[in-house]
Amino acid sequence: MEFRGAHILSVTQFERDDVQRVFEVADSMEPYAHRLRISKALDGAILGSMFFEPSTRTRVSFGCAFNLLGGHVRETTDIKSSSITKGESLYDTARVISGYSDVVVMRHPQPGSVAEFAKASRVPVINGGDGPNEHPSQALLDLYTIKKELISKQRSIDGMHIAMVGDLKHGRTVHSLSQLLLLYKGITFSLISPRELKMPDSIVAELRNAGHEVIETEDMEAGLKDNDTVYLTRIQEERFENKLEADIYRGRFRMNQAIYTRHCQPNTVIMHPLPRDSREEANELDNDLNQHPNLAIFRQTDNGVLVRMALFALILDVTDKIDRNATDVGWYTESRFD
Amino acid sequence: MEFRGAHILSVTQFERDDVQRVFEVADSMEPYAHRLRISKALDGAILGSMFFEPSTRTRVSFGCAFNLLGGHVRETTDIKSSSITKGESLYDTARVISGYSDVVVMRHPQPGSVAEFAKASRVPVINGGDGPNEHPSQALLDLYTIKKELISKQRSIDGMHIAMVGDLKHGRTVHSLSQLLLLYKGITFSLISPRELKMPDSIVAELRNAGHEVIETEDMEAGLKDNDTVYLTRIQEERFENKLEADIYRGRFRMNQAIYTRHCQPNTVIMHPLPRDSREEANELDNDLNQHPNLAIFRQTDNGVLVRMALFALILDVTDKIDRNATDVGWYTESRFD
Amino acid sequence: MEFRGAHILSVTQFERDDVQRVFEVADSMEPYAHRLRISKALDGAILGSMFFEPSTRTRVSFGCAFNLLGGHVRETTDIKSSSITKGESLYDTARVISGYSDVVVMRHPQPGSVAEFAKASRVPVINGGDGPNEHPSQALLDLYTIKKELISKQRSIDGMHIAMVGDLKHGRTVHSLSQLLLLYKGITFSLISPRELKMPDSIVAELRNAGHEVIETEDMEAGLKDNDTVYLTRIQEERFENKLEADIYRGRFRMNQAIYTRHCQPNTVIMHPLPRDSREEANELDNDLNQHPNLAIFRQTDNGVLVRMALFALILDVTDKIDRNATDVGWYTESRFD
Repeated sequence: MEFRGAHILSVTQFERDDVQRVFEVADSMEPYAHRLRISKALDGAILGSMFFEPSTRTRVSFGCAFNLLGGHVRETTDIKSSSITKGESLYDTARVISGYSDVVVMRHPQPGSVAEFAKASRVPVINGGDGPNEHPSQALLDLYTIKKELISKQRSIDGMHIAMVGDLKHGRTVHSLSQLLLLYKGITFSLISPRELKMPDSIVAELRNAGHEVIETEDMEAGLKDNDTVYLTRIQEERFENKLEADIYRGRFRMNQAIYTRHCQPNTVIMHPLPRDSREEANELDNDLNQHPNLAIFRQTDNGVLVRMALFALILDVTDKIDRNATDVGWYTESRFD
Repeated sequence: MEFRGAHILSVTQFERDDVQRVFEVADSMEPYAHRLRISKALDGAILGSMFFEPSTRTRVSFGCAFNLLGGHVRETTDIKSSSITKGESLYDTARVISGYSDVVVMRHPQPGSVAEFAKASRVPVINGGDGPNEHPSQALLDLYTIKKELISKQRSIDGMHIAMVGDLKHGRTVHSLSQLLLLYKGITFSLISPRELKMPDSIVAELRNAGHEVIETEDMEAGLKDNDTVYLTRIQEERFENKLEADIYRGRFRMNQAIYTRHCQPNTVIMHPLPRDSREEANELDNDLNQHPNLAIFRQTDNGVLVRMALFALILDVTDKIDRNATDVGWYTESRFD
Repeated sequence: MEFRGAHILSVTQFERDDVQRVFEVADSMEPYAHRLRISKALDGAILGSMFFEPSTRTRVSFGCAFNLLGGHVRETTDIKSSSITKGESLYDTARVISGYSDVVVMRHPQPGSVAEFAKASRVPVINGGDGPNEHPSQALLDLYTIKKELISKQRSIDGMHIAMVGDLKHGRTVHSLSQLLLLYKGITFSLISPRELKMPDSIVAELRNAGHEVIETEDMEAGLKDNDTVYLTRIQEERFENKLEADIYRGRFRMNQAIYTRHCQPNTVIMHPLPRDSREEANELDNDLNQHPNLAIFRQTDNGVLVRMALFALILDVTDKIDRNATDVGWYTESRFD
């Protein structure tokens, strides 16, 4: 794909080469994200950050990524503080906001809304999550993390075994990650979930058509066997029509030190898109694994900054300007990135 | 007027020469707002953005204008996150906030509140809308747009015909624009509104005293005849004591392709302060005109950035420093401004 | 203490020399805070500003201080827009957010929460107020103000007389300031409050153990006698279990021109942590003193910027880089700081 000026709306936009390109640029962002060097590649540029749904992690991650490239961030975080409550169309909002920004990142509860916004926008738009639909930068950072974690264990994405656990019906991160894995070869998927929250049939069919092996199970023990990566998810309470129903499934599948030791490989990477629900009744990923070297959940969020910096650099076409006029960081930073 | 260090509270502050000066400086901001050049004139300066009422457009426009001059923006967007709920006076808020900022932009639901704030402030204050009262930067950007649109049609503000349509009682934009037009000559106003939502008598009287011709009518067809500009407005539901009453008037006067073709001149400029209410029951300006070359509504919001940059540059006295140390934009920008 | 890389969680961390060091650095920040010079010492750095409780003053003051050192600010202002409502632990929030920031300032309603966050954070954390517990930067700015005010009157902190008035039970500012004054010698405290809202016994005992004289009284007149400084506080309604109870005490102790003239010294400095409650029923510090030269309340908030700049500079270890590459301010600033 041509990144220059492109909208990033869906993982289905990407060919395998495109993903590779994002990952290469993400690698080159490390000295900046890890506070060794300062880049001014986007000095003077403005990110319009439009969050029409609560978010701390994604919003701050995008804002931080843009700041690390030298740009300004103008944020709108509350749909109630918006003209949309006065009957404004997404078309109008897009025409106006894109006159204020060089690139827009948008989260919105309604599937398709970000694509609709992008159609009217005069600048590139990145989908920061449109309800249960897509969240492409999350899928990219997940895959980027898998790649980096497996490399250090002499493995690769092609041919890996991955278990996905939990609410596979509502979790857009597992949907988007699965879509992205269609570009790779010979993967074994263990899909562990309550029957009622299983991965949509259409995605399972696509995975199989791409030549991947898919095992669907409600038996955690069987599903965890021989996995390189286990990807846990939260019960997406906010996507249930009946919130009480979510209580039935919460806490059903859990990962903790004992289960890890018993059922996982010594090398199995533990992932979670966060937030993890640490309330006792849920606790799908126990704190007793917090010090485990294979727990990659905070490397995921750190990698998110690299991937988002890469997306900004690619669509605003400054990948060759990152190092130009870059300077060393002058303030105290301890080595805080793994 | 002396712009240096001045508060911008009301359109009544301006003489015709002052308006002309704002427009000249706004013209000079184009390379910066249109992402050809980067200015550092306000590098290190801080805008205190105090929005005690929901706003996306005006808030982001001011913030973007300040960023484009190189400055930082510190925002407060929610009155509930404010000391005012703990009984703090505007005097105290102003004394404190003005110690944190180089200039303040403020929106507040109460008429006169921004002027009260400015009285106690130690730095210049720009009124970003004080309830139904004033919104001077909106009036300036409206007039700036009219000027630019008419010039391209070999017309000028003096002697033009303008129709104002809709809720002329509550719409502060039509009030402020009318005030500003007192500085010009020989204008014909067609004021088209439900009788109950007509322009306040005091403003009509002022317009007539200034030598302008004013026609008040409930007949859209008659009112639209021979106009250079038609300025549509939304029913200002939030200003009605009884919200249900707003429903009576919503949708009463509408502009669309058919009406435009039948009643307007081929050159008539279509304006709206936005947000336009695109819900079916309102729809005062139909989407079927979105591609019309005379639809100036998004040029209005683009011009808003130029005018706000001009106000900041004038009151902080950096108009002669804008081009100094300016550099070319290094990232991808397609030509997205008309 | 070693400031480099340190968390600032409690006033109890500081020795007298440490306080002295903060004040020296704060003094050196004056040309920058007072808009004479621009520093780029933290150019490229990111402050993660996490406010899980409403705040305008403290939040903007920290953000402004960071901007004045050249850094970016990424803000989260609303606990409802946070993953914490999805069951996320402070541990997770801290691990994630500290990957996005170079330093974090955090306010949270729960005592101890900021320390808990700091324990998991990978970057230095400043406590911006953890419920009724601590607010160290406020105590430092209060003491810095006292020092500067008394110096100009040829007095010093050692040996001074200070009256604290109002809700001494819930007011964390008077608790923290008292803690800090344990480092000084021979101070006389007049603690004026309703019996039910008196200073906690543990703090009174500490003050006496440190050799200070403490007078507790409900008699304002007696308490005000011979004071160098009177520190007024608001009834902390939000800390009462029964909000109606707060009404009993509101308005009980008031300072105004008449009382000042009758009971204070000609030199007595008037302080208040703000916000002051200016509603008629409260009005603990009357507006008729607004022009009084000894009213230091807005010098307190101005000094807050200096002290917070000093804390950032010390923990990020850039005190020797502030003046490097500093430039003169190029925009209009009238002399607006006392």
